[in-house]
Amino acid sequence: MDKKQLFENIKAKKSFLCVGLDTDIKKIPQHLLKEEDPIFSFNKAIIDATAPYCIAYKPNLAFYESMGVKGWISFEKTIKYLNDNYPNHFIIADAKRGDIGNTSAMYARTFFEEMNIDSVTVAPYMGEDSVSPFLTYPNKWVILLALTSNKGSHDFQLTADSNGERLFEKVLRQSQNWGNDENMMYVVGATQGKMFEDIRKVAPNHFLLVPGIGAQGGSLEEVCKYGMNSTCGLIVNSSRAIIYADSTENFAKVAAEKAKEVQQQMEAELAKAGL
Amino acid sequence: MDKKQLFENIKAKKSFLCVGLDTDIKKIPQHLLKEEDPIFSFNKAIIDATAPYCIAYKPNLAFYESMGVKGWISFEKTIKYLNDNYPNHFIIADAKRGDIGNTSAMYARTFFEEMNIDSVTVAPYMGEDSVSPFLTYPNKWVILLALTSNKGSHDFQLTADSNGERLFEKVLRQSQNWGNDENMMYVVGATQGKMFEDIRKVAPNHFLLVPGIGAQGGSLEEVCKYGMNSTCGLIVNSSRAIIYADSTENFAKVAAEKAKEVQQQMEAELAKAGL
Repeated sequence: MDKKQLFENIKAKKSFLCVGLDTDIKKIPQHLLKEEDPIFSFNKAIIDATAPYCIAYKPNLAFYESMGVKGWISFEKTIKYLNDNYPNHFIIADAKRGDIGNTSAMYARTFFEEMNIDSVTVAPYMGEDSVSPFLTYPNKWVILLALTSNKGSHDFQLTADSNGERLFEKVLRQSQNWGNDENMMYVVGATQGKMFEDIRKVAPNHFLLVPGIGAQGGSLEEVCKYGMNSTCGLIVNSSRAIIYADSTENFAKVAAEKAKEVQQQMEAELAKAGL
Repeated sequence: MDKKQLFENIKAKKSFLCVGLDTDIKKIPQHLLKEEDPIFSFNKAIIDATAPYCIAYKPNLAFYESMGVKGWISFEKTIKYLNDNYPNHFIIADAKRGDIGNTSAMYARTFFEEMNIDSVTVAPYMGEDSVSPFLTYPNKWVILLALTSNKGSHDFQLTADSNGERLFEKVLRQSQNWGNDENMMYVVGATQGKMFEDIRKVAPNHFLLVPGIGAQGGSLEEVCKYGMNSTCGLIVNSSRAIIYADSTENFAKVAAEKAKEVQQQMEAELAKAGL
């Protein structure tokens, strides 16, 4: 999917919500455990219920890998289901990969060629050759970690060099030599609030993937105030607050209601910005 | 495995070689393709042939994940084969993971509890809470990326802060508040040569996992000169130069010869250091 199409979808849906598929066998409704593939059954129900209110889905690989082979089967089925039934929804493999060139190239092949996923999250620590193999696929995206939502984001990401440039700013600036706002986005945690202003100074036009509203406590209003740009420029993720809002047989209906609530807040924010 | 046992194994084998199982279906000998699980058949033969000369194995997850569900089956079979037959060989899941706390905890559970792997490589960019869930398992290890072997290692890892401390040094120093030399190692590329001196100033006692000899061009002699400590302190990995040394039906025998060559160089280096 290209940037233009992504923005078209946001305008059409009046939403920039990404639903995070952090599907944990220990947290899904009990009655699903009798299904042949409870993880996939849960995802399918969540996807069908929330699709009208979101523009993206983000399965977090850790949740699938933690179940070994079974988990990978559920993951692949989920991706296929999305590609077959919701081709206009942007798919993010939240994998946080990053390795030497030949290894990153293998990951790129897996996610982009074999699974037809739109984007993958990548860690920047190993530098250019760990990122660039992901940038060679047309209409596919790298989503590079910049300023994450967790407490540990302060350990290294805010360290300033002798010119006062902080590590996340260096990542934003330097990575623009490798890719551009048509094939690269950045992860910026919703918990970072006013820091979005600093992000936008270095990366005014890029889309940002924003985790951390909901369970992690970030504010959608602040994110929009400081982070929105003329093509929206935001994909805001919510996982637990939507998918685990209810643990009964009504879980999908309640998830849809929660997604709709967020969508309506987003509609208001888009209107405020005249988009 | 604890540090004492690891050092005992090194002394007994006169080797600190790790064989990297970067197993690629496109590179293994053709005759294996008729096997039911060519990847596992290759690994099994390589392991049986090289076990006398090495103290560790490092499957690189990317190579298995790139084959989807099939690849995960081969990976799990390889780990089980190692645990069942070579319990004294240290197993490294080269995964370069690192995510917010609850996600890192899931990865830790997968690799340490479910698969009984000794260690996992972790990326430091997201800070303490992305690393610490891996540090709660007795006799299991985090191997944190510090100064990697690739060209891109210069992009961010060498950036100095206003006090002159470089990012890799900050990672080494700060992570010692989270773990110690009994549950944490660091990745330092063999291609970094004299930089091992700087590493040892900040982390004198930790084991270092050293990729980059062989195909990537690092020198074993330099690594030992600048990086060895009183408990050896080095696990040096070679992947392609050993496992793909031959592509005929003799591949395992040739791999063993290559591993033995490296082992003999290591024996000489250990003797030089009086270990």
